[in-house]
Amino acid sequence: SAQRIALVPGDGIGPEVTAQAVKACDAAAQRFGLDLVWEDYELGADYWRITGQVVPPDVERELAKADAILFGAVGDPSVPPGVLERGLVIHLRTAFDQYVNLRPVKLLPGVPSPIGGLRPEQCDLVILRENTEGAYVGAGGFIHRGGPDEIATQESVNTRKGVERLIRHGFRLALTRRKHVTLVHKANILTYAGDLWQRTFEEVAAEYPEISVEYVHVDAMCLYLVTQPERFDVVVTDNLFGDIITDLGAAVQGGLGLAASGNLNPTGSAPSMFEPVHGSAPDIAGRGWANPAGSILSAALMLEHLGHPEAARSLEDGVKAVLPRLGAMRGPEMGMSTEDFGDAVAAAISED
Amino acid sequence: SAQRIALVPGDGIGPEVTAQAVKACDAAAQRFGLDLVWEDYELGADYWRITGQVVPPDVERELAKADAILFGAVGDPSVPPGVLERGLVIHLRTAFDQYVNLRPVKLLPGVPSPIGGLRPEQCDLVILRENTEGAYVGAGGFIHRGGPDEIATQESVNTRKGVERLIRHGFRLALTRRKHVTLVHKANILTYAGDLWQRTFEEVAAEYPEISVEYVHVDAMCLYLVTQPERFDVVVTDNLFGDIITDLGAAVQGGLGLAASGNLNPTGSAPSMFEPVHGSAPDIAGRGWANPAGSILSAALMLEHLGHPEAARSLEDGVKAVLPRLGAMRGPEMGMSTEDFGDAVAAAISED
Ligand SMILES: CC(C)[C@H](C(=O)O)[C@@H](O)C(=O)O
Ligand SMILES: CC(C)[C@H](C(=O)O)[C@@H](O)C(=O)O
Repeated sequence: SAQRIALVPGDGIGPEVTAQAVKACDAAAQRFGLDLVWEDYELGADYWRITGQVVPPDVERELAKADAILFGAVGDPSVPPGVLERGLVIHLRTAFDQYVNLRPVKLLPGVPSPIGGLRPEQCDLVILRENTEGAYVGAGGFIHRGGPDEIATQESVNTRKGVERLIRHGFRLALTRRKHVTLVHKANILTYAGDLWQRTFEEVAAEYPEISVEYVHVDAMCLYLVTQPERFDVVVTDNLFGDIITDLGAAVQGGLGLAASGNLNPTGSAPSMFEPVHGSAPDIAGRGWANPAGSILSAALMLEHLGHPEAARSLEDGVKAVLPRLGAMRGPEMGMSTEDFGDAVAAAISED
Repeated sequence: SAQRIALVPGDGIGPEVTAQAVKACDAAAQRFGLDLVWEDYELGADYWRITGQVVPPDVERELAKADAILFGAVGDPSVPPGVLERGLVIHLRTAFDQYVNLRPVKLLPGVPSPIGGLRPEQCDLVILRENTEGAYVGAGGFIHRGGPDEIATQESVNTRKGVERLIRHGFRLALTRRKHVTLVHKANILTYAGDLWQRTFEEVAAEYPEISVEYVHVDAMCLYLVTQPERFDVVVTDNLFGDIITDLGAAVQGGLGLAASGNLNPTGSAPSMFEPVHGSAPDIAGRGWANPAGSILSAALMLEHLGHPEAARSLEDGVKAVLPRLGAMRGPEMGMSTEDFGDAVAAAISED
């Protein structure tokens, strides 16, 4: 039966790149006999300027009924920074309890990494970022704001339940991969939050004797991601550290334009949301210079999540076939427009 | 008149590398007519095991009277993680109000960077990390610890005074360099702490119309450090983000073994402390495989701080002369022992 996908293209390059992801999904649907129904939602900067709302309650209720959400990007110079990011992206991650932010860091063949000599087989890890709590809860405050004695606090809130369900997801995923899980934190300094993460990690690890584990400080992680990414298989970490190390991971795998992510609600109580790691890039919007690989690979994660692993693989294979033909990973030097890229991927999916 | 330097070699490779830094300083003292007096302090893992104390009050009072502290590294498998790091490193940074942690990220000629094709002229920045507050204050707590409803909080505390003095130091430093200051934070999510940092940054920037400024999110910073380090001159950031991005910076400039730092108290109310960014590396301790460049370059920052810029430069030049002769940046493949490295640097300083 039909699966309903809410499409939220958003701002900047969001519409261009999601259009290619839709094209690729439709090609895969055709080939593998899937019944995908797309429903468009015009959220983002314009919507906010006109209505004064980021996501009105009735739209949120509709989104909640979708089988999945394919998201582009939000953010525009005309909107105060943070309003759309927090009101839309962070809000939906939390409201739909998408507690796993899954971000593969995979160097695809033919893609140049800034890390000299790095080969694809040395760079294939998955970072699972806790996606509903930590420093992202927005707790904190001021005293004497604006004066010489001002103090600003910012609080990270971590629950056993939130930490445990993310870590458990990591161990289950590792069983299907190279059976190694790394916890990234800064437990020697963040002694309260770090203690909860380390204790929970050790307790869950004890249930998986076949999986090897490691603890790495977040500062060292940044170093290792650059110098020895082959060390990692599944990485679990908190919301803020995950934000930081996944951008670095995106750099290592050849650029933000190629990085995919899934905001997963593994219980199915609300839809999961799939989005490229890149932002709305207003500087290059509308010129055909954006690389849609991040969006198409996010759609592949979505198809996998919706129970269509073969269709998912066809999208990944399509991207892999086209990437080596690019002159650069973004911009006019790409040598192929955003739309041509999407057409080529769709053709590769259909032909196979 | 004599300047008294407290030497705290510490654990693991700390003694080996600081010995080379002392050797280099002594060679420079000889050449430039400085009067440096060294006072040894046997702090670290053994001291803690025997006395049960990390830094007893009377030792701290003695250290407080030194003109500077040259620190190696602490940490040993026999000591619970964090005890020495917090009790010694973090404690002294705070107790001696060393509010600027200055960490140059400079690719030296002849040093291979993991970033393919990176040239020295593209990588010459200085990161100033706030060193006394933020997430490092140790504020936080548990409720229902150990139970299914456990919550662990961790709080970052930021004062106007602390933020402003760090930022001011950055602008003053930028005047002597390429006149560009970047603020790194995550202000779209950490809205309280980020707001204080951004407001303070803008206010101080207004006093320096000749300096160009930029704000970059910490996640994007990790990406840019790898893909376009030439974008940065002076970077100011908080304690935790500074910890993270300076390790990444160390990777970019060729490895932790080469990275230097100064914990500065610019008011002179207490001594500043100079330490390599690397840790005690117990796995390679005592084998002559450690690269002493980080320690010698930290000593160069110390000589600069003590008012001896020529002597400082002679240490940096000495390191620059020896590095290209190494087979690798650490380990047996270095092709030169830790001690030979120190001798070669000292010889280069004396010969010039
Ligand atoms: C847009 C921003 C709020 C978001 C985040 O911080 O999570 C982004 O950086 C990401 O990684 O998805
Ligand atoms: C040892 C540790 C406490 C320390 C820190 O986190 O500051 C280290 O990582 C550093 O960067 O100097």
